[in-house]
Amino acid sequence: MNEIGINVLVEISKEIRNAVHPFLGSSEGGRIVGIGFGEDRTRLIDKIAEEVVVKYLKRNSISCILIGEEGGVQEIGENPKRYLIVDAVDGTMNAVRGIGFASSALAFASEDNLKDVEAAAVMNLFSGELYVAEKNKGAWRNGKRITTSKTSDLKSSVISVDLSPVPKSVSAIIPVMKATGRVRSLGSASLEICCVASGMLDAHLDMRGMLRTFDFAAAMLILQEAGGIFSLLEVDEKDEIPLTKLRHFSIIAAANKELYSQIISLIHDCKG
Amino acid sequence: MNEIGINVLVEISKEIRNAVHPFLGSSEGGRIVGIGFGEDRTRLIDKIAEEVVVKYLKRNSISCILIGEEGGVQEIGENPKRYLIVDAVDGTMNAVRGIGFASSALAFASEDNLKDVEAAAVMNLFSGELYVAEKNKGAWRNGKRITTSKTSDLKSSVISVDLSPVPKSVSAIIPVMKATGRVRSLGSASLEICCVASGMLDAHLDMRGMLRTFDFAAAMLILQEAGGIFSLLEVDEKDEIPLTKLRHFSIIAAANKELYSQIISLIHDCKG
Repeated sequence: MNEIGINVLVEISKEIRNAVHPFLGSSEGGRIVGIGFGEDRTRLIDKIAEEVVVKYLKRNSISCILIGEEGGVQEIGENPKRYLIVDAVDGTMNAVRGIGFASSALAFASEDNLKDVEAAAVMNLFSGELYVAEKNKGAWRNGKRITTSKTSDLKSSVISVDLSPVPKSVSAIIPVMKATGRVRSLGSASLEICCVASGMLDAHLDMRGMLRTFDFAAAMLILQEAGGIFSLLEVDEKDEIPLTKLRHFSIIAAANKELYSQIISLIHDCKG
Repeated sequence: MNEIGINVLVEISKEIRNAVHPFLGSSEGGRIVGIGFGEDRTRLIDKIAEEVVVKYLKRNSISCILIGEEGGVQEIGENPKRYLIVDAVDGTMNAVRGIGFASSALAFASEDNLKDVEAAAVMNLFSGELYVAEKNKGAWRNGKRITTSKTSDLKSSVISVDLSPVPKSVSAIIPVMKATGRVRSLGSASLEICCVASGMLDAHLDMRGMLRTFDFAAAMLILQEAGGIFSLLEVDEKDEIPLTKLRHFSIIAAANKELYSQIISLIHDCKG
């Protein structure tokens, strides 16, 4: 059995990018072909991208428990032990519309638990920009070590927020947006969290209560290894978060503790 | 005197892109060096980019009245008649942070009036993606003719909204955001309006009452020539909008009349 390391994640990312390239900015890529494990509509581009992963694993005799947004939990090969968690296209709407901000996100974990994610790769499917991280070893963007920003007040910050759909907690999030220098909404959680990891953004918030572990597992490790804070809202730190079970979360990704505290206090003040 | 045509706008755009390239994703590019005509802080990258325009015009003996975000209204050459309206870097914060969504925006007009804009070019300073339009002749993206999307209901739409800062009219804009399929906020008005022109986005809204004519003149023509609707809020259609005077606007850019009507009615309902 071959090992699954960062190199494998990067090779798979490149194969996904090659396969989806003809469908970037193409309405055909957006054709709905089913409903995935993640309960979202599967579009042609999602299906093609996830098939690339399965084919790669089989061709290279890599045994693993694959957890994919579309195909759900599948055992690949004999006696699989490691977990490979995949969102083959994160930002599908951007991808098929041609808005240059969509990614593949892959991570592997030693156990069926979010805290056991050990390696990750996120690739911008348009530009090929590549983020990787290895647990306790660091995070890199296009081969260069990255760290989060040192911006410590929201007024000077650029943060991104997912507003699709506008969260029910919009009254909780507006004070954060009002206190922040600039607000973006870019449409790919993995890439937005990686932007926080590399200092381009200072925080990313998603208060919709809709994210699944495969939406953020890879980018979470990249952020943590770059020195950032990743937090699941309303989850006890000691909770086990199995990767094979579908569960929905709100998240905060922040460059540092100061910004994280400011965001949390604004949200809590508002919730009263 | 040389004519100012689309080719000149494209050549200047390319020179701007070359000049700012070293400052993309660079904090040095974000260093504040003054206050511009547009009343925003001028950053080094803005200054360098606008200087490229002045040098190009002088080097090529092009006479015009230049209206720049930084330098304001300047007569260049002898007996200038045409107006060249320039936002040399639109999305400065994205540019210096390395978020791949910033543009140059150039347009020329036969008279000192927004309705007399006759040619326009908007270039993504990261990717080099180029939008151009000529009055009554059409609009193009990377040489291919573009038209706006036919999406006619907000539920299936992807729209962008400028939320930096969150507009005072946030209570008017939230119903639009709630009624819309996906919301983005990309941070460069010119590029976002061009995304509407090419069908990537279905609408762009900026309700902050902060945009100046040089922020949208180029993209406005590109959108109109692609079949879209461009509207200044609370401005009578017959009003003269001089390009040489600083004035602030809220805008709606929409792919078609159906979407425009839906957006307007949601905003009006809310304003009561």
